[in-house]
Amino acid sequence: MTARTSSETARVIPEATVARLPVYLRALTALADAGIRTCSSEDLATAAGVNSAKLRKDLSYLGSYGTRGVGYDVDYLRYQIAREIGVTQDWPVVIVGIGNLGHALASYSGFRSRGFRVVALLDADPERHEEVVAGVAVRPFDDLDAIAHEHAVAIGVIATPAAAAQDVADRMVAAGITSILNFAPAVISVPDGVDVRKVDLSIELQILAYHEQRKAHEHARDEVAAAMGGEA
Amino acid sequence: MTARTSSETARVIPEATVARLPVYLRALTALADAGIRTCSSEDLATAAGVNSAKLRKDLSYLGSYGTRGVGYDVDYLRYQIAREIGVTQDWPVVIVGIGNLGHALASYSGFRSRGFRVVALLDADPERHEEVVAGVAVRPFDDLDAIAHEHAVAIGVIATPAAAAQDVADRMVAAGITSILNFAPAVISVPDGVDVRKVDLSIELQILAYHEQRKAHEHARDEVAAAMGGEA
Repeated sequence: MTARTSSETARVIPEATVARLPVYLRALTALADAGIRTCSSEDLATAAGVNSAKLRKDLSYLGSYGTRGVGYDVDYLRYQIAREIGVTQDWPVVIVGIGNLGHALASYSGFRSRGFRVVALLDADPERHEEVVAGVAVRPFDDLDAIAHEHAVAIGVIATPAAAAQDVADRMVAAGITSILNFAPAVISVPDGVDVRKVDLSIELQILAYHEQRKAHEHARDEVAAAMGGEA
Repeated sequence: MTARTSSETARVIPEATVARLPVYLRALTALADAGIRTCSSEDLATAAGVNSAKLRKDLSYLGSYGTRGVGYDVDYLRYQIAREIGVTQDWPVVIVGIGNLGHALASYSGFRSRGFRVVALLDADPERHEEVVAGVAVRPFDDLDAIAHEHAVAIGVIATPAAAAQDVADRMVAAGITSILNFAPAVISVPDGVDVRKVDLSIELQILAYHEQRKAHEHARDEVAAAMGGEA
C-alpha cells in the first residue's frame, strides 16, 4: 500500500495562516453581530487588520474564494473557518492555578463562545477549595488525573506562578493532556506529540510601543521640518 | 525641498515582522537566562517557533546579520531588538478596570521587565478605591485626565466589562492617550492616529484546538490503516 495523497492529508495549512484563522473568525463574528450578511475581502481584511491579498490567499487554503461582485457570505465563512479550526466541536478544558488570572480566565466569556468548556478548576491551595468561580467549583490539584479521564480533557491551561508550571505540565501530560496553554512566565518542556503555546501578555504592549515610538519620531521630524520652514 | 529617503524614514518594517520582534526578544531572554551567549539563527528560530529563513529575513530589517560560523551575540541582538521596539525606554501605562483581569495585569511581572511601568490603576467602583495592587493604589476613573497628563501616559489598558469599553476609550483619547490595549470583549472605535490592539485570550486556545483536531484525524487514520493491515 503506497502513501496516497488524499485531499484531506495533502491540505496542510501553513502555521501562519492557522494563527490568523481565529482572527478572521473574530472579525466575522463582529460583522455578523453588526447585522452584516456579506462582505468583500477588503472589508474583512480591514476588520481583521491584514492586507486583502493575504486574506484571499489564507482563505484559499479552505477552498473559500467568495463570489465575484458579492464577496463572502459572512455566516457560511464563519462556519467554514470554525470547522477548520475545530471549534464547531466541544473542547473540555481544565484550568490549573486559580489566582487572579485563573479567576479571570474561568470567567472569560470568550472561551465558552468558542466551544471551550471549562470542566474543572484546580488549585493546590486547600483554602481555595471552597470557592465556586463562574459556576465551577475549585478542586484539589490531585484530582487532575481523574478529571482528565472522566471528561476526556485534551487541553489544559496553566495559570500558576512560574515555579509550579513545569510540575503542572508534567502532571497534565501524565494525565493524557496533549495541548497546553501556558500563561505562567516560565518555559516548560514537554514530550513530542504535546503542543504548548505560551501566552505573553506583554507582546501586544510591545507592538503598541513600537508604533508609539514611530509616532514620536514622525512628530519630531515634522517639528524640525516646520522649524526649517521646509515643505514635505 | 524634495522628499528625501533617509536611512531612518526608508526602513519601514513590515507589520508581521513587528509582531514577531517581541517573540524573538522573549526567546533571546530565555537563552540569556540559560547562560547562552551566542546562538545560530536555527537555534533562535527554534526557540521562537518560526523557520530560520523567516527569522534571518526579519532580522535583516534591523541590519542584523550575525557572524558566519559564530551566529548572533545574544545580548547585543536583545539590545538591538529592544531598541527597535522601543522597550529600552520607559513607558508609563494606566490600567482601567480592576476586576480579576485588571488585578492579574497589575501584578504581571512581564510588563515591568519590558519597560512598561504601571503608573495608575483606575476603577469607577468606589469600593475598589481602598485597594492597593502590586504597590499601586486604585484611584477613581475620573482621575484619568490628570494622571495621563502628569505622567505623560501614551498607553492605556482597558480591562473593564464590554459595556464600559467604548466610554473608557473615548476618555483615554480625550486625555491624550494614543495607544490602547483592549482586553474587553468589545470592538472599540477611535480616531485616526490612535492605535488599538485587542487581546482575545481564546485565540491561542483555538490554535491548539486546530492541532488537536489534526492529531485526532491522524490517529484515526493510523487506526484504520492498522486495521487494514496496511503499511505506511
